[in-house]
Amino acid sequence: MNRLRYAVSLSYEVMDPMADFLLNIEAARTPRQSVVSEQLTLPPGLETARYTDPVLANRLLRLRAPQGPLGIRYEAIIDIDHYLEDGDRLSEVPVAELPFDVLPYLAPSRYCESDRLMEFASREFGGMLRGYVRVYAIREWVRNHVRFLSRSTNERTSAADTIVERTGVCRDFAHLMIALCRALSIPARMSSSLDYGADADMGGPDFHAVVEVYLSHRWYLLDPSGISIPTGLLRIGTGRDAADIPFAAIFGQVRSERPAVEIEPLTDAAAGIGMPVFTPQAISTW
Amino acid sequence: MNRLRYAVSLSYEVMDPMADFLLNIEAARTPRQSVVSEQLTLPPGLETARYTDPVLANRLLRLRAPQGPLGIRYEAIIDIDHYLEDGDRLSEVPVAELPFDVLPYLAPSRYCESDRLMEFASREFGGMLRGYVRVYAIREWVRNHVRFLSRSTNERTSAADTIVERTGVCRDFAHLMIALCRALSIPARMSSSLDYGADADMGGPDFHAVVEVYLSHRWYLLDPSGISIPTGLLRIGTGRDAADIPFAAIFGQVRSERPAVEIEPLTDAAAGIGMPVFTPQAISTW
Amino acid sequence: MNRLRYAVSLSYEVMDPMADFLLNIEAARTPRQSVVSEQLTLPPGLETARYTDPVLANRLLRLRAPQGPLGIRYEAIIDIDHYLEDGDRLSEVPVAELPFDVLPYLAPSRYCESDRLMEFASREFGGMLRGYVRVYAIREWVRNHVRFLSRSTNERTSAADTIVERTGVCRDFAHLMIALCRALSIPARMSSSLDYGADADMGGPDFHAVVEVYLSHRWYLLDPSGISIPTGLLRIGTGRDAADIPFAAIFGQVRSERPAVEIEPLTDAAAGIGMPVFTPQAISTW
Amino acid sequence: MNRLRYAVSLSYEVMDPMADFLLNIEAARTPRQSVVSEQLTLPPGLETARYTDPVLANRLLRLRAPQGPLGIRYEAIIDIDHYLEDGDRLSEVPVAELPFDVLPYLAPSRYCESDRLMEFASREFGGMLRGYVRVYAIREWVRNHVRFLSRSTNERTSAADTIVERTGVCRDFAHLMIALCRALSIPARMSSSLDYGADADMGGPDFHAVVEVYLSHRWYLLDPSGISIPTGLLRIGTGRDAADIPFAAIFGQVRSERPAVEIEPLTDAAAGIGMPVFTPQAISTW
Repeated sequence: MNRLRYAVSLSYEVMDPMADFLLNIEAARTPRQSVVSEQLTLPPGLETARYTDPVLANRLLRLRAPQGPLGIRYEAIIDIDHYLEDGDRLSEVPVAELPFDVLPYLAPSRYCESDRLMEFASREFGGMLRGYVRVYAIREWVRNHVRFLSRSTNERTSAADTIVERTGVCRDFAHLMIALCRALSIPARMSSSLDYGADADMGGPDFHAVVEVYLSHRWYLLDPSGISIPTGLLRIGTGRDAADIPFAAIFGQVRSERPAVEIEPLTDAAAGIGMPVFTPQAISTW
Repeated sequence: MNRLRYAVSLSYEVMDPMADFLLNIEAARTPRQSVVSEQLTLPPGLETARYTDPVLANRLLRLRAPQGPLGIRYEAIIDIDHYLEDGDRLSEVPVAELPFDVLPYLAPSRYCESDRLMEFASREFGGMLRGYVRVYAIREWVRNHVRFLSRSTNERTSAADTIVERTGVCRDFAHLMIALCRALSIPARMSSSLDYGADADMGGPDFHAVVEVYLSHRWYLLDPSGISIPTGLLRIGTGRDAADIPFAAIFGQVRSERPAVEIEPLTDAAAGIGMPVFTPQAISTW
Repeated sequence: MNRLRYAVSLSYEVMDPMADFLLNIEAARTPRQSVVSEQLTLPPGLETARYTDPVLANRLLRLRAPQGPLGIRYEAIIDIDHYLEDGDRLSEVPVAELPFDVLPYLAPSRYCESDRLMEFASREFGGMLRGYVRVYAIREWVRNHVRFLSRSTNERTSAADTIVERTGVCRDFAHLMIALCRALSIPARMSSSLDYGADADMGGPDFHAVVEVYLSHRWYLLDPSGISIPTGLLRIGTGRDAADIPFAAIFGQVRSERPAVEIEPLTDAAAGIGMPVFTPQAISTW
Repeated sequence: MNRLRYAVSLSYEVMDPMADFLLNIEAARTPRQSVVSEQLTLPPGLETARYTDPVLANRLLRLRAPQGPLGIRYEAIIDIDHYLEDGDRLSEVPVAELPFDVLPYLAPSRYCESDRLMEFASREFGGMLRGYVRVYAIREWVRNHVRFLSRSTNERTSAADTIVERTGVCRDFAHLMIALCRALSIPARMSSSLDYGADADMGGPDFHAVVEVYLSHRWYLLDPSGISIPTGLLRIGTGRDAADIPFAAIFGQVRSERPAVEIEPLTDAAAGIGMPVFTPQAISTW
C-alpha cells in the first residue's frame, strides 16, 4: 500500500469572450486506487459539468470560463494498493480469449501506428518467449534505443517518428512501446499519471505517460522511459494513446502556464503504508 | 423506408495450423436499421464467440479456424427507416453541450490527424455559417479536391497524406472529411457500409466508408466520395476511423480472396417501401 | 543599382577536441552581384580551405577548430545590379528547351516533395495562363494559405508538412513554393539571402530563404513569405533546397549562439545608388 | 575485366498531342567502364537532344514524341575494369579532407533523410571501427533488417519509411543505406545499374539501384539488397538518390510498358574476360 498527496494548480488567461475546457486532472478511482480525500477549487459562478467514464474511470471536468484569468486547483490524498505478481506467472492472452472490450487496444491509434511496425516487431520480438518476459524485453528495447531529450519532439510526434529519430520524452517512449506491443497482438494502452520519484533533472514532477499491457487477464503497468518509480505512480487518465487523455483540452483562445504539480509520498508505519520502492515484480493498479 | 437484401461471401485459406478471425460483416441493429431476417453460414465445428458493442452496435464474430479453406456466408434482409431533416434546421452543438460520450469523436485518430489540420480547417471553413451548411461545404470541398483513383493509396494512407496527394478511395475521402470536421470541433466518425448504387465503374458493390457528423444531437450521414446513394447505404460498423472497424481482422498466415458482395433493393409498394433515391435532406440512420 | 553593407558574427564553443565547420556566409559573386569590399576575420592559426562552386557561386569556407570558443566575423559591401523585366514578357520554358543543367531543379528534393504535389498543383494552377503570372499566383497562394509563425516548425519540416499544417517560417514558405513550381515542370530553387527590410517583428535581420524560378532563360527571385523587400536581398547561397545551403554545417559537439547579423543599405545619389524599394517588375539577380 | 551485353527496349503510347521524355538508359562512360559498341534505335524524325553530365557521366537523351506509339531500343557491349581493393586498406575520409565536390553527398536528399537518422546511426554504428568494415556492417544491417518484398513500397517511399516498415525493393534498401552512411558523415550516393545475376525470382533483369560510398578518395560499390553479383553490375546513372536518376522522366500523358531488359556476360578467355563472380574485395567502377 502507498499513499500519495497530489496537488495541481492550473493557471490560464482566457482571451476570447468565452472558452471551454475539458480537464482530466482528478485522480481516477479504480479497483486498486482510492481517493482518501480531495478538494477541487474553482472560481465561483462557473458553468461546469462532470463525467466519469464507466469503463476507463477517467474523470472529466468540463467548464466554460469568461474572458480573464482562470485559476483551478485540485488537491487529493490517494491510496494505491498495488497488485504485485511474479512476471514469470503472467502470460499473453490469445486473441481468441481476449475480452471483446479489450480488442480495441490491438488497433493502431493516432500516435501508435502498430500497423506500420508489424515487420519490425515480428523480427525483433517474434521469436521470444511469450509473456511478461517479452513485454519487459520490449520495454527494455525502447528504453535502450531511444534517448530522453526534452523538447526534441512535439505534440504531433508519433511512434513511427520515434523509431526513426530515436529521441523523445515520456509520451514518445510510451507510444512506441504501445505500438510494438499491439503489432505483436498484445493489447496495450496509455495511462497518464503523476510520478513521485521522477529524476530531478527532468524538471520537477509533471504529468507522466506510462504503458499498460494486458497479460493473464489483467492490466500491468510499465514505464519504458525508466524515469519513474512505478509504485509511486498515481493514475489520472487511461486511453488508447495521448490523443484520448489530454489533461486539458481547450476550445478558444487561451494563454496557458505550465501546470504546477506537487506530489509526495505519505507514510504511516502503523497502517503499513511505506515509501514507493522499486520492485522486480509486475505491478498492476487496476 | 427502404429495404435491402445484402449478402457477403468470404473465402480464405488458412496456412498456419490455426488462425483467428475477428469479423464485422453482420448488419448493425440501430434505432433506425432493423434486421428482417438474416442467416450466417459457417463451417461446422468452428470455435466462435459473438459480441455486440453496447454503444456502437458493431457485431463482432470471432472464430478460430484450422488449416485449410474457410468459407463464410452472411445473408440478410434489412429495413432502414431514414430520419430526414432539412439541413438548415441542424446546428452544430457547442462543446459545452456535447454529451460526454460524443467527445471522443473530437480527438485525432490513426487515420484522421485533425490536430495537424487545425490551421487549414480554420482558414477554409472557420468563417462559414455554422451547421449542416458548413458540414456540407466540407463534404463538397473533399469531393471536389480529391480524385477518386483506385489503388492510388493503401491501408496506411491517412488524412494528412490525402490532403497532400489529393487522390484516394472512399475511405480516404471519409478520413479527410472526418479530420476536417474534428479540427473545427464538430464530432465526426466513420461508418462502414454496403452501398447499393455505387457507380458500376467502381468495380461492383463493396464495403464503403462514409462519414457521420453530430449535429443537433443526432448523427447525420454524408458520403464525401459522392459515389453512393446515401439512402441505399446499409450500416455494418461504426467507429472513429477505419482502424476501429475492419470487416476482417486476421491473426495468422491466411490467404484472402476479395469478398463477394451482393446488395439489391427490395420494394413493396403496399408497405411503402421504395427504391433508394437521392434526397436534398440531411439523412440519419441512427 | 543597390548597395548593402552586411556583417555577420558567429560565435561557437567547441566541446570536442576538434570540430569541423563548413560555412557559407560570404556574399556570392554573380553576374549581377559584386563585392565592393569584404573582410573575413578568423582566429589565427586555424586550418582552413576555401571553395567556390563553379556553377552556383556558393562560397564555402571549411575550417577545423580546437576545443574552446570560436568567433568568426565577415563584413562586406555589396553592389547589386538588379535585372528588371515586365512579368508579362516572361514565359515558362518548355522541358524540351530547358538547358540540361537546369533539369535537376525539376526533381523533388529533401524538403520539396514535388512528386507528392502533382495532383494538387495541377488542379490549382494547371489551368492558368502560363508564365510569370502563374508563378506569381503560386507565390500569392503560398503567402495567403500559410501563416508565418515563429518556432511552429523545425529543421525537419518539408513542403508536404507545410501543405498539411499551414504554418511556418520563411524556409517553409520557400520549400512549398518550390515544390509547387516543380510539380508543374517549372524549374525552381532556393536562395539563402540576407534581407534588408524584413519586418521588424520578425526579430531583426537574419538569413532569409527565398525562391528562384527559371523563366525565359533566366532565374527570377520571389519571396513567398512576403516579409522582404526583394531588391534589398543579398545572395549568399543557391541550391535545390535548404539541405544544400546551410549557412553552417558542423561536425562535432559544438554549442552555437544565434548569428548576429547586420545589414543596411548604403546610398550614393551621385552614383545612382538608392534605397531598396518594392517594384512591380520581375527581379533577377543572376 | 568483365564484358556485358546489354539491351533495353522501351515501349510507350503517347496520349497527348506531344510528350517530352528525358531518358537515362545508355551505359555511362567512366574511368573504369567503357563502351565497346552501342546502338540506339529511335523512330525517324524525332526531335532529340543529348547531354552527358561532365561530373557524373550520366547520359541524358531528351526527345519530343507525337501522339501514338513510341518504341526505343538501345543495345551495347560494355567493358568494366573493376578496381579491387582489400577492404581493410580503405578508410573513411575526414570531413576536413573531403573534396568539395563530394560534400553534397553528405546532405539529406528526397529519399534519404539522413538528418532524421543521426541518433540511430550514431547508436548503432557510432562505436564501430571506421572504414570499409563499418560501411560493410551498415550494408549487412540493412540487408538483415529489411525484407525484400515486391510491390510493398512505391515511388514515394523514403529511407524514413523503410526504417519503420522494414520491407522494400532494391531502391529502398539503397536509400536506407545511403541515409545511414550520410548520418555518419560518410559520403554516399546511388547508382542505377543493370545487374547480371539478379536472383531469377526477382522477375528477370531490371534496373537495379545500388550504393556507392566514398572511402580512401574513391567511390566503392555495395548492394545492400544482396541480390546482385556486384561485378556483374553495369552503370547507367549516378546521383544523390532515385530522384536524380530516373531511367525515364516523362512530361505529358503517356502509357508505359515495363522496359524489356536483356543482359548477359560475354567471355573471352584469350582476352582475360571471364564471368562476373563474387569477390570478398571492395569494388570500384569509377
